[in-house]
Amino acid sequence: MPPRTLCPVTSNDELVKLEAVYRPLADSVRRLIDATIRTQVDAATLAAAKEKIDCTTEELSAALMPSSFGVRQTADGQSMPWGNVVIGLRNPVAPPLAINYEADGLVWSDFTLGAAYEGPPGHVHGGVCAMVLDHVLGATAHKPGRPAVTGTLSVRYLRGTPLGPLRAEAHIDRVEGVKTFASGHIADAQGITVQAEGVFVHPQNRGANS
Amino acid sequence: MPPRTLCPVTSNDELVKLEAVYRPLADSVRRLIDATIRTQVDAATLAAAKEKIDCTTEELSAALMPSSFGVRQTADGQSMPWGNVVIGLRNPVAPPLAINYEADGLVWSDFTLGAAYEGPPGHVHGGVCAMVLDHVLGATAHKPGRPAVTGTLSVRYLRGTPLGPLRAEAHIDRVEGVKTFASGHIADAQGITVQAEGVFVHPQNRGANS
Repeated sequence: MPPRTLCPVTSNDELVKLEAVYRPLADSVRRLIDATIRTQVDAATLAAAKEKIDCTTEELSAALMPSSFGVRQTADGQSMPWGNVVIGLRNPVAPPLAINYEADGLVWSDFTLGAAYEGPPGHVHGGVCAMVLDHVLGATAHKPGRPAVTGTLSVRYLRGTPLGPLRAEAHIDRVEGVKTFASGHIADAQGITVQAEGVFVHPQNRGANS
Repeated sequence: MPPRTLCPVTSNDELVKLEAVYRPLADSVRRLIDATIRTQVDAATLAAAKEKIDCTTEELSAALMPSSFGVRQTADGQSMPWGNVVIGLRNPVAPPLAINYEADGLVWSDFTLGAAYEGPPGHVHGGVCAMVLDHVLGATAHKPGRPAVTGTLSVRYLRGTPLGPLRAEAHIDRVEGVKTFASGHIADAQGITVQAEGVFVHPQNRGANS
Protein backbone atom coordinates (compact mmCIF):
# COMPACT_ATOMS: atom_id res chain seq x y z
CA MET A 1 0.00 0.00 0.00
CA PRO A 2 1.67 3.26 -1.08
CA PRO A 3 1.77 6.38 1.13
CA ARG A 4 -1.43 8.35 0.76
CA THR A 5 -2.75 11.81 1.49
CA LEU A 6 -6.36 11.42 0.39
CA CYS A 7 -7.80 14.39 2.15
CA PRO A 8 -10.38 16.84 1.22
CA VAL A 9 -8.24 19.64 2.70
CA THR A 10 -10.04 21.43 5.48
CA SER A 11 -9.73 24.90 7.07
CA ASN A 12 -8.81 25.30 10.72
CA ASP A 13 -12.44 26.07 11.62
CA GLU A 14 -13.56 22.93 9.86
CA LEU A 15 -10.82 20.98 11.67
CA VAL A 16 -12.16 22.09 15.06
CA LYS A 17 -15.70 21.11 14.03
CA LEU A 18 -14.59 17.71 12.75
CA GLU A 19 -12.63 17.03 15.93
CA ALA A 20 -15.75 17.81 18.01
CA VAL A 21 -17.61 15.10 16.08
CA TYR A 22 -14.97 12.38 15.84
CA ARG A 23 -13.25 12.59 19.24
CA PRO A 24 -16.41 11.79 21.28
CA LEU A 25 -17.20 8.84 18.97
CA ALA A 26 -13.73 7.34 19.42
CA ASP A 27 -13.92 7.97 23.18
CA SER A 28 -17.19 6.05 23.27
CA VAL A 29 -15.58 3.12 21.45
CA ARG A 30 -12.68 3.26 23.96
CA ARG A 31 -15.16 2.85 26.82
CA LEU A 32 -16.83 -0.03 24.92
CA ILE A 33 -13.44 -1.76 24.52
CA ASP A 34 -12.85 -1.55 28.27
CA ALA A 35 -16.34 -2.91 29.04
CA THR A 36 -15.90 -5.73 26.50
CA ILE A 37 -12.81 -6.92 28.38
CA ARG A 38 -14.23 -6.48 31.90
CA THR A 39 -17.93 -7.31 31.59
CA GLN A 40 -19.46 -10.10 33.64
CA VAL A 41 -23.01 -9.90 32.27
CA ASP A 42 -24.81 -13.06 31.11
CA ALA A 43 -24.61 -14.65 27.65
CA ALA A 44 -27.97 -13.25 26.51
CA THR A 45 -26.88 -9.70 27.31
CA LEU A 46 -23.56 -10.31 25.53
CA ALA A 47 -25.39 -11.57 22.44
CA ALA A 48 -27.69 -8.53 22.43
CA ALA A 49 -24.66 -6.25 22.77
CA LYS A 50 -22.96 -7.95 19.83
CA GLU A 51 -26.04 -7.45 17.68
CA LYS A 52 -26.20 -3.75 18.54
CA ILE A 53 -22.48 -3.32 17.79
CA ASP A 54 -22.79 -5.10 14.42
CA CYS A 55 -25.73 -2.87 13.52
CA THR A 56 -23.73 0.26 14.42
CA THR A 57 -20.74 -0.94 12.38
CA GLU A 58 -23.01 -1.49 9.41
CA GLU A 59 -24.35 2.06 9.65
CA LEU A 60 -20.85 3.53 9.89
CA SER A 61 -19.77 1.36 6.96
CA ALA A 62 -22.35 2.88 4.58
CA ALA A 63 -19.48 5.14 3.43
CA LEU A 64 -15.93 4.02 4.20
CA MET A 65 -12.64 5.41 2.96
CA PRO A 66 -10.98 2.72 0.83
CA SER A 67 -8.07 1.87 3.15
CA SER A 68 -6.49 3.38 6.26
CA PHE A 69 -6.85 7.00 7.42
CA GLY A 70 -3.32 8.07 6.52
CA VAL A 71 -2.00 11.46 7.61
CA ARG A 72 -3.97 14.38 6.26
CA GLN A 73 -3.22 18.07 6.24
CA THR A 74 -5.37 21.15 6.55
CA ALA A 75 -5.18 23.99 4.04
CA ASP A 76 -2.82 25.84 6.40
CA GLY A 77 -0.48 22.87 6.76
CA GLN A 78 -1.63 21.43 10.10
CA SER A 79 -1.11 17.70 10.34
CA MET A 80 -4.07 15.42 11.14
CA PRO A 81 -2.61 12.08 12.26
CA TRP A 82 -6.10 11.08 13.45
CA GLY A 83 -5.74 7.40 12.59
CA ASN A 84 -2.37 6.98 14.36
CA VAL A 85 -2.34 4.03 16.78
CA VAL A 86 -0.60 6.06 19.52
CA ILE A 87 -1.90 9.63 19.13
CA GLY A 88 -4.87 9.34 16.74
CA LEU A 89 -7.99 10.98 18.17
CA ARG A 90 -10.16 8.97 15.74
CA ASN A 91 -8.43 5.66 16.52
CA PRO A 92 -10.03 3.90 19.53
CA VAL A 93 -6.92 1.70 19.90
CA ALA A 94 -4.86 4.83 20.70
CA PRO A 95 -5.05 5.89 24.40
CA PRO A 96 -4.56 8.57 22.72
CA LEU A 97 -1.37 10.26 23.88
CA ALA A 98 -1.21 14.08 23.79
CA ILE A 99 2.40 15.01 23.08
CA ASN A 100 3.83 18.16 24.70
CA TYR A 101 6.89 19.96 23.35
CA GLU A 102 8.97 22.15 25.71
CA ALA A 103 11.22 25.01 24.54
CA ASP A 104 14.33 23.15 25.79
CA GLY A 105 13.56 20.17 23.51
CA LEU A 106 11.94 17.95 26.15
CA VAL A 107 8.97 15.97 24.85
CA TRP A 108 6.53 14.53 27.37
CA SER A 109 3.10 13.00 27.74
CA ASP A 110 0.92 12.19 30.73
CA PHE A 111 -1.48 9.36 29.96
CA THR A 112 -3.44 6.55 31.56
CA LEU A 113 -3.40 2.94 30.40
CA GLY A 114 -6.25 0.68 31.46
CA ALA A 115 -7.28 -2.94 31.00
CA ALA A 116 -6.92 -2.80 27.20
CA TYR A 117 -3.11 -2.48 27.47
CA GLU A 118 -2.46 -5.36 29.86
CA GLY A 119 0.31 -7.95 29.66
CA PRO A 120 1.14 -9.49 33.05
CA PRO A 121 -1.77 -9.24 35.51
CA GLY A 122 -2.29 -5.61 36.54
CA HIS A 123 0.64 -4.43 34.44
CA VAL A 124 1.20 -2.77 31.07
CA HIS A 125 2.43 -5.18 28.36
CA GLY A 126 6.17 -4.70 27.80
CA GLY A 127 5.42 -4.28 24.09
CA VAL A 128 3.05 -1.38 24.78
CA CYS A 129 5.84 0.33 26.75
CA ALA A 130 8.09 -0.12 23.70
CA MET A 131 5.36 1.28 21.44
CA VAL A 132 4.87 4.39 23.58
CA LEU A 133 8.63 4.97 23.84
CA ASP A 134 9.10 4.55 20.08
CA HIS A 135 6.53 7.29 19.52
CA VAL A 136 7.66 9.72 22.24
CA LEU A 137 11.37 9.39 21.41
CA GLY A 138 10.51 9.74 17.72
CA ALA A 139 8.56 12.92 18.50
CA THR A 140 11.83 14.65 19.48
CA ALA A 141 12.98 14.30 15.87
CA HIS A 142 9.65 14.87 14.15
CA LYS A 143 9.16 18.35 12.66
CA PRO A 144 6.12 19.64 10.74
CA GLY A 145 6.53 18.57 7.11
CA ARG A 146 9.71 16.67 8.02
CA PRO A 147 8.66 13.30 9.46
CA ALA A 148 11.20 11.05 11.16
CA VAL A 149 11.08 7.26 11.13
CA THR A 150 12.64 4.81 13.54
CA GLY A 151 16.05 3.39 12.62
CA THR A 152 16.74 1.48 15.85
CA LEU A 153 15.09 1.32 19.26
CA SER A 154 16.59 -0.24 22.42
CA VAL A 155 14.38 -0.72 25.46
CA ARG A 156 15.46 -1.67 28.99
CA TYR A 157 12.86 -2.82 31.50
CA LEU A 158 13.72 -1.93 35.11
CA ARG A 159 10.51 -3.26 36.67
CA GLY A 160 6.87 -3.90 35.79
CA THR A 161 4.84 -0.86 34.72
CA PRO A 162 1.51 -0.84 36.58
CA LEU A 163 -1.70 -0.07 34.71
CA GLY A 164 -2.89 3.43 35.62
CA PRO A 165 -1.50 6.98 35.27
CA LEU A 166 1.96 7.19 33.67
CA ARG A 167 4.35 9.72 32.16
CA ALA A 168 6.67 9.32 29.19
CA GLU A 169 9.54 11.74 28.55
CA ALA A 170 12.22 12.00 25.87
CA HIS A 171 14.96 14.34 24.74
CA ILE A 172 17.52 14.59 21.95
CA ASP A 173 21.03 13.42 22.86
CA ARG A 174 22.60 14.54 19.58
CA VAL A 175 21.94 15.06 15.86
CA GLU A 176 24.25 13.73 13.13
CA GLY A 177 23.09 14.64 9.63
CA VAL A 178 19.69 12.98 9.02
CA LYS A 179 19.96 10.97 12.26
CA THR A 180 18.55 12.09 15.62
CA PHE A 181 19.75 10.17 18.71
CA ALA A 182 17.12 10.35 21.45
CA SER A 183 16.58 8.82 24.88
CA GLY A 184 13.73 8.72 27.36
CA HIS A 185 11.66 6.73 29.79
CA ILE A 186 8.27 5.79 31.18
CA ALA A 187 7.62 6.47 34.88
CA ASP A 188 4.85 5.87 37.39
CA ALA A 189 4.47 7.76 40.70
CA GLN A 190 7.32 5.67 42.17
CA GLY A 191 9.82 6.49 39.41
CA ILE A 192 11.18 5.12 36.15
CA THR A 193 9.98 1.68 35.00
CA VAL A 194 11.36 1.48 31.45
CA GLN A 195 14.20 3.30 29.66
CA ALA A 196 14.86 3.59 25.93
CA GLU A 197 17.32 4.90 23.37
CA GLY A 198 16.56 5.29 19.71
CA VAL A 199 17.90 6.56 16.42
CA PHE A 200 15.39 8.34 14.22
CA VAL A 201 15.96 9.19 10.59
CA HIS A 202 14.57 11.86 8.25
CA PRO A 203 14.20 9.89 5.03
CA GLN A 204 14.24 11.47 1.56
CA ASN A 205 10.84 9.96 0.77
CA ARG A 206 7.99 9.39 3.21
CA GLY A 207 6.40 6.16 4.35
CA ALA A 208 8.38 4.13 6.84
CA ASN A 209 8.09 3.28 10.53
CA SER A 210 6.43 5.59 13.05
CA MET B 1 -2.20 -2.52 41.21
CA PRO B 2 -0.86 -5.89 42.44
CA PRO B 3 -0.79 -9.03 40.28
CA ARG B 4 -4.15 -10.77 40.38
CA THR B 5 -5.65 -14.15 39.55
CA LEU B 6 -9.30 -13.46 40.29
CA CYS B 7 -10.78 -16.35 38.42
CA PRO B 8 -13.66 -18.53 39.06
CA VAL B 9 -11.68 -21.53 37.76
CA THR B 10 -13.40 -23.19 34.83
CA SER B 11 -13.25 -26.66 33.28
CA ASN B 12 -12.05 -27.17 29.71
CA ASP B 13 -15.64 -27.61 28.47
CA GLU B 14 -16.65 -24.38 30.13
CA LEU B 15 -13.59 -22.70 28.59
CA VAL B 16 -14.68 -23.70 25.09
CA LYS B 17 -18.20 -22.42 25.77
CA LEU B 18 -16.92 -19.11 27.16
CA GLU B 19 -14.63 -18.64 24.18
CA ALA B 20 -17.58 -19.15 21.81
CA VAL B 21 -19.37 -16.27 23.56
CA TYR B 22 -16.53 -13.79 24.07
CA ARG B 23 -14.52 -14.16 20.85
CA PRO B 24 -17.38 -13.09 18.52
CA LEU B 25 -18.13 -10.08 20.75
CA ALA B 26 -14.51 -8.90 20.65
CA ASP B 27 -14.39 -9.53 16.87
CA SER B 28 -17.46 -7.31 16.48
CA VAL B 29 -15.77 -4.54 18.46
CA ARG B 30 -12.66 -4.94 16.24
CA ARG B 31 -14.82 -4.31 13.16
CA LEU B 32 -16.39 -1.31 14.89
CA ILE B 33 -12.92 0.12 15.64
CA ASP B 34 -11.99 -0.15 11.95
CA ALA B 35 -15.27 1.50 10.86
CA THR B 36 -14.80 4.29 13.45
CA ILE B 37 -11.47 5.18 11.86
CA ARG B 38 -12.58 4.85 8.24
CA THR B 39 -16.19 6.01 8.19
CA GLN B 40 -17.28 8.93 6.01
CA VAL B 41 -20.94 9.05 7.02
CA ASP B 42 -22.55 12.36 8.02
CA ALA B 43 -22.55 13.94 11.50
CA ALA B 44 -26.11 12.85 12.30
CA THR B 45 -25.27 9.20 11.59
CA LEU B 46 -22.09 9.54 13.69
CA ALA B 47 -24.10 10.97 16.60
CA ALA B 48 -26.65 8.14 16.37
CA ALA B 49 -23.82 5.59 16.32
CA LYS B 50 -22.26 7.16 19.41
CA GLU B 51 -25.58 6.93 21.25
CA LYS B 52 -25.98 3.25 20.37
CA ILE B 53 -22.40 2.51 21.46
CA ASP B 54 -22.88 4.32 24.79
CA CYS B 55 -26.07 2.37 25.40
CA THR B 56 -24.28 -0.93 24.69
CA THR B 57 -21.41 0.01 27.01
CA GLU B 58 -23.90 0.78 29.75
CA GLU B 59 -25.52 -2.65 29.36
CA LEU B 60 -22.16 -4.42 29.45
CA SER B 61 -21.17 -2.34 32.48
CA ALA B 62 -24.10 -3.63 34.60
CA ALA B 63 -21.58 -6.11 36.02
CA LEU B 64 -17.87 -5.31 35.59
CA MET B 65 -14.87 -7.00 37.14
CA PRO B 66 -13.18 -4.45 39.43
CA SER B 67 -10.00 -3.87 37.42
CA SER B 68 -8.26 -5.54 34.47
CA PHE B 69 -8.84 -9.12 33.26
CA GLY B 70 -5.52 -10.49 34.49
CA VAL B 71 -4.41 -13.98 33.52
CA ARG B 72 -6.76 -16.72 34.67
CA GLN B 73 -6.32 -20.46 34.74
CA THR B 74 -8.68 -23.34 34.22
CA ALA B 75 -8.97 -26.17 36.75
CA ASP B 76 -6.55 -28.23 34.61
CA GLY B 77 -3.97 -25.46 34.47
CA GLN B 78 -4.65 -23.97 31.04
CA SER B 79 -3.79 -20.29 30.88
CA MET B 80 -6.45 -17.77 29.80
CA PRO B 81 -4.61 -14.57 28.84
CA TRP B 82 -7.85 -13.28 27.33
CA GLY B 83 -7.25 -9.64 28.22
CA ASN B 84 -3.72 -9.53 26.78
CA VAL B 85 -3.19 -6.61 24.38
CA VAL B 86 -1.37 -8.81 21.82
CA ILE B 87 -3.03 -12.24 22.06
CA GLY B 88 -6.17 -11.66 24.16
CA LEU B 89 -9.26 -13.05 22.43
CA ARG B 90 -11.47 -10.82 24.64
CA ASN B 91 -9.39 -7.70 24.05
CA PRO B 92 -10.53 -5.80 20.91
CA VAL B 93 -7.22 -3.90 20.85
CA ALA B 94 -5.37 -7.20 20.24
CA PRO B 95 -5.29 -8.25 16.54
CA PRO B 96 -5.22 -10.93 18.24
CA LEU B 97 -2.09 -12.93 17.38
CA ALA B 98 -2.29 -16.74 17.48
CA ILE B 99 1.16 -17.98 18.53
CA ASN B 100 2.45 -21.26 17.06
CA TYR B 101 5.20 -23.32 18.68
CA GLU B 102 7.29 -25.69 16.53
CA ALA B 103 9.14 -28.73 17.89
CA ASP B 104 12.50 -27.16 16.97
CA GLY B 105 11.79 -24.12 19.16
CA LEU B 106 10.65 -21.79 16.38
CA VAL B 107 7.76 -19.55 17.40
CA TRP B 108 5.70 -17.90 14.67
CA SER B 109 2.48 -16.08 13.98
CA ASP B 110 0.67 -15.09 10.79
CA PHE B 111 -1.52 -12.05 11.33
CA THR B 112 -3.07 -9.10 9.58
CA LEU B 113 -2.81 -5.49 10.74
CA GLY B 114 -5.37 -2.99 9.43
CA ALA B 115 -6.10 0.72 9.78
CA ALA B 116 -6.10 0.55 13.61
CA TYR B 117 -2.34 -0.11 13.71
CA GLU B 118 -1.22 2.69 11.40
CA GLY B 119 1.74 5.02 11.88
CA PRO B 120 3.05 6.48 8.60
CA PRO B 121 0.38 6.48 5.87
CA GLY B 122 -0.38 2.91 4.78
CA HIS B 123 2.23 1.47 7.14
CA VAL B 124 2.32 -0.22 10.54
CA HIS B 125 3.48 2.09 13.36
CA GLY B 126 7.09 1.28 14.29
CA GLY B 127 5.95 0.94 17.91
CA VAL B 128 3.41 -1.74 16.96
CA CYS B 129 6.21 -3.69 15.26
CA ALA B 130 8.19 -3.43 18.52
CA MET B 131 5.15 -4.59 20.51
CA VAL B 132 4.59 -7.64 18.31
CA LEU B 133 8.29 -8.54 18.41
CA ASP B 134 8.42 -8.16 22.20
CA HIS B 135 5.59 -10.66 22.51
CA VAL B 136 6.75 -13.18 19.90
CA LEU B 137 10.39 -13.18 21.07
CA GLY B 138 9.16 -13.45 24.67
CA ALA B 139 7.01 -16.43 23.71
CA THR B 140 10.19 -18.45 23.02
CA ALA B 141 11.01 -18.18 26.74
CA HIS B 142 7.49 -18.44 28.13
CA LYS B 143 6.55 -21.87 29.54
CA PRO B 144 3.25 -22.89 31.17
CA GLY B 145 3.42 -21.85 34.82
CA ARG B 146 6.82 -20.24 34.21
CA PRO B 147 6.22 -16.79 32.71
CA ALA B 148 9.09 -14.78 31.26
CA VAL B 149 9.29 -11.01 31.31
CA THR B 150 11.29 -8.70 29.06
CA GLY B 151 14.70 -7.57 30.29
CA THR B 152 15.86 -5.76 27.17
CA LEU B 153 14.59 -5.47 23.61
CA SER B 154 16.49 -4.06 20.61
CA VAL B 155 14.65 -3.41 17.39
CA ARG B 156 16.14 -2.56 13.98
CA TYR B 157 13.91 -1.20 11.24
CA LEU B 158 15.04 -2.18 7.72
CA ARG B 159 12.11 -0.58 5.88
CA GLY B 160 8.49 0.39 6.41
CA THR B 161 6.10 -2.46 7.25
CA PRO B 162 2.98 -2.17 5.07
CA LEU B 163 -0.46 -2.66 6.62
CA GLY B 164 -1.86 -6.05 5.60
CA PRO B 165 -0.83 -9.70 6.06
CA LEU B 166 2.42 -10.21 7.98
CA ARG B 167 4.42 -12.93 9.70
CA ALA B 168 6.47 -12.74 12.89
CA GLU B 169 9.04 -15.39 13.80
CA ALA B 170 11.42 -15.88 16.72
CA HIS B 171 13.83 -18.45 18.08
CA ILE B 172 16.07 -18.90 21.10
CA ASP B 173 19.75 -18.06 20.55
CA ARG B 174 20.89 -19.31 23.97
CA VAL B 175 19.83 -19.75 27.60
CA GLU B 176 21.98 -18.61 30.54
CA GLY B 177 20.41 -19.38 33.92
CA VAL B 178 17.13 -17.42 34.21
CA LYS B 179 17.90 -15.48 31.00
CA THR B 180 16.71 -16.48 27.53
CA PHE B 181 18.36 -14.69 24.57
CA ALA B 182 15.99 -14.65 21.59
CA SER B 183 15.92 -13.09 18.14
CA GLY B 184 13.35 -12.76 15.39
CA HIS B 185 11.71 -10.57 12.78
CA ILE B 186 8.58 -9.36 11.07
CA ALA B 187 8.22 -10.00 7.34
CA ASP B 188 5.78 -9.18 4.57
CA ALA B 189 5.53 -11.04 1.24
CA GLN B 190 8.69 -9.22 0.04
CA GLY B 191 10.82 -10.24 3.03
CA ILE B 192 11.99 -8.98 6.40
CA THR B 193 11.00 -5.45 7.44
CA VAL B 194 12.03 -5.35 11.12
CA GLN B 195 14.52 -7.39 13.17
CA ALA B 196 14.78 -7.73 16.95
CA GLU B 197 16.86 -9.24 19.70
CA GLY B 198 15.72 -9.55 23.30
CA VAL B 199 16.63 -10.92 26.70
CA PHE B 200 13.77 -12.47 28.63
CA VAL B 201 13.92 -13.35 32.29
CA HIS B 202 12.08 -15.87 34.48
CA PRO B 203 11.59 -13.86 37.66
CA GLN B 204 11.13 -15.40 41.12
CA ASN B 205 7.83 -13.56 41.56
CA ARG B 206 5.29 -12.80 38.82
CA GLY B 207 4.08 -9.49 37.54
CA ALA B 208 6.47 -7.66 35.26
CA ASN B 209 6.62 -6.78 31.57
CA SER B 210 4.99 -8.95 28.91
